[in-house]
This record gives sequence, structure tokens and C-alpha cells, in this order.
Amino acid sequence: MACDLCNLLEAPAEGVIIWGDELLVVINVDEPEYPGYTRVVWREHVREMTDLTAAQRQHVMAVVWAVEDAQRAVMAPHKINLASFGNMTPHVHWHVIPRYTDDAHFPQPTWAPVQRAADPAVLAARRALLPALHEAMIERLQGIA
Amino acid sequence: MACDLCNLLEAPAEGVIIWGDELLVVINVDEPEYPGYTRVVWREHVREMTDLTAAQRQHVMAVVWAVEDAQRAVMAPHKINLASFGNMTPHVHWHVIPRYTDDAHFPQPTWAPVQRAADPAVLAARRALLPALHEAMIERLQGIA
Repeated sequence: MACDLCNLLEAPAEGVIIWGDELLVVINVDEPEYPGYTRVVWREHVREMTDLTAAQRQHVMAVVWAVEDAQRAVMAPHKINLASFGNMTPHVHWHVIPRYTDDAHFPQPTWAPVQRAADPAVLAARRALLPALHEAMIERLQGIA
Repeated sequence: MACDLCNLLEAPAEGVIIWGDELLVVINVDEPEYPGYTRVVWREHVREMTDLTAAQRQHVMAVVWAVEDAQRAVMAPHKINLASFGNMTPHVHWHVIPRYTDDAHFPQPTWAPVQRAADPAVLAARRALLPALHEAMIERLQGIA
């Protein structure tokens, strides 16, 4: 299969999927500079948000807000970044990224050139929050229809 | 005032606001490389989407989908890019960007390093679609509660 996200959903590696229902999955992104980086991925290979029905879009965004809310509660980032591009992988997915003033790209988006090396000790402390983060996400996501 | 978006909303330049209601505005972004680039800006200075109520979030996204739908209908881009960062301007706003395989940054997000110079004739042809694009947006937005 040509689509990276279809491939990932076909055979997800252990521990990658934090939560899922019949329509989408919430994925822990292993991005060393960005502990807590999460993707919300629609299961079906659909190109644009406006290719989904209104109810489906609402479901995707309810999951994005639950992820954002859990990131804020557990990781207290300076800012949340949200994005859905799909230029290389045109399969609906959202990036939900906790950002800090001392992270590698701040105040630029994470797709911009690197601004600095993030402190490894700071990253390790953030990484230590991941079990609590995933628990907080699951707690919020269980309440979603 | 310290916030660029609060300043813009205080005294918007002629032709910048395509549409607005009591809660938000839809803004034509004058980005020469990206005709059709649109921002949806919440009027009140609010930091994160999860600082809004569920109904307010739903309203923001309904407007984003209407903008996306109009861009697809009038400009037939290769892909729509959606993003809400706010690292420098922590005031809720969404970027809705029609992307093409021949644009300045494709397949990267527009915040990544430039990949090529876009063809001025192609950009001019896309710019010529703006009146129709804004009409299509207003048409869709008038149907939104």
C-alpha cells in the first residue's frame, strides 16, 4: 500500500495506539524533541476534512480537543499547536503538539528550521509525564460518543 | 495593545475582512505566494481552543469547513492545509491555505524552508479567482448559525 498511515493502521507497532474507536485512532508520536506529540488519525483513507460528514468532522475534533485538554492538564505547555496538512500523506490526520518556549523550534512551528537544541534533562522530565498523559487522554476519550 | 490580532480587529484595513459575525471574522491574508490564504480569527483574545466552550469551538470549526469548502470549489487546490499555532500571537486563529504541487513550499508546510519560486503567471491566475472565492465563502457562511 502506498499510504504511510494506511500501512501504520494495518500493522501498528506495540504501544503506538493510545486509544481508538471504529472511526479513528489516537497515536503517540515518537518525536524525541517533542514528548507528548500526538496524532489523531481517521481510519479510512479520506483526503480532506470536508470529505467527511459534519458528524464525522465533529467526532474528529472532539477527539482533538480531548487530546489538547489532556496535554494542557498533564504537561502544562506554553501553547498547543494544531495542524492538519496531508501534503505528503493525504489521509486525514491531526497533529496535536505541546509547545514550550525552550523547545527546539519555538516560537516557530515545528516544521520551520530548528532554533536551538532542547535541554535533554528537560526533555527527559517531559517524557516522564507520558504515562500520566496517556491515562488522562483515555479518561477524556472514554466520555466521547 | 500588545496583540497583533487585537490590533487588526480594532482597525481592520479596507478589504481585509471577508465576512464576520459577533464572534469571529474571516480574513483575506495578503500572502503573495498564496492567493486564497484565509484566516479565521476569534474576536475575543482567547489563548487556546479548549478555552472556548464546546459550542464556540463548533462555531469556529464550522466556519473553517466553510472556508475550506469554498477554496476547494473555486480554487481546486491539490490539498488544503489547516493550522492553529499562536506561539507568537496567542489569540485563537486558524490558517486555511490552498496548496498546489507547484507552490513555493510544496510538499512542506508553508512554515518550512522555501522549495522553489512559484511561477508569477500561475500566481496571477490564482489571484484572479479571489473575488469568486470570497463570494463562495460568503454564500456558505451566510448559512451558518
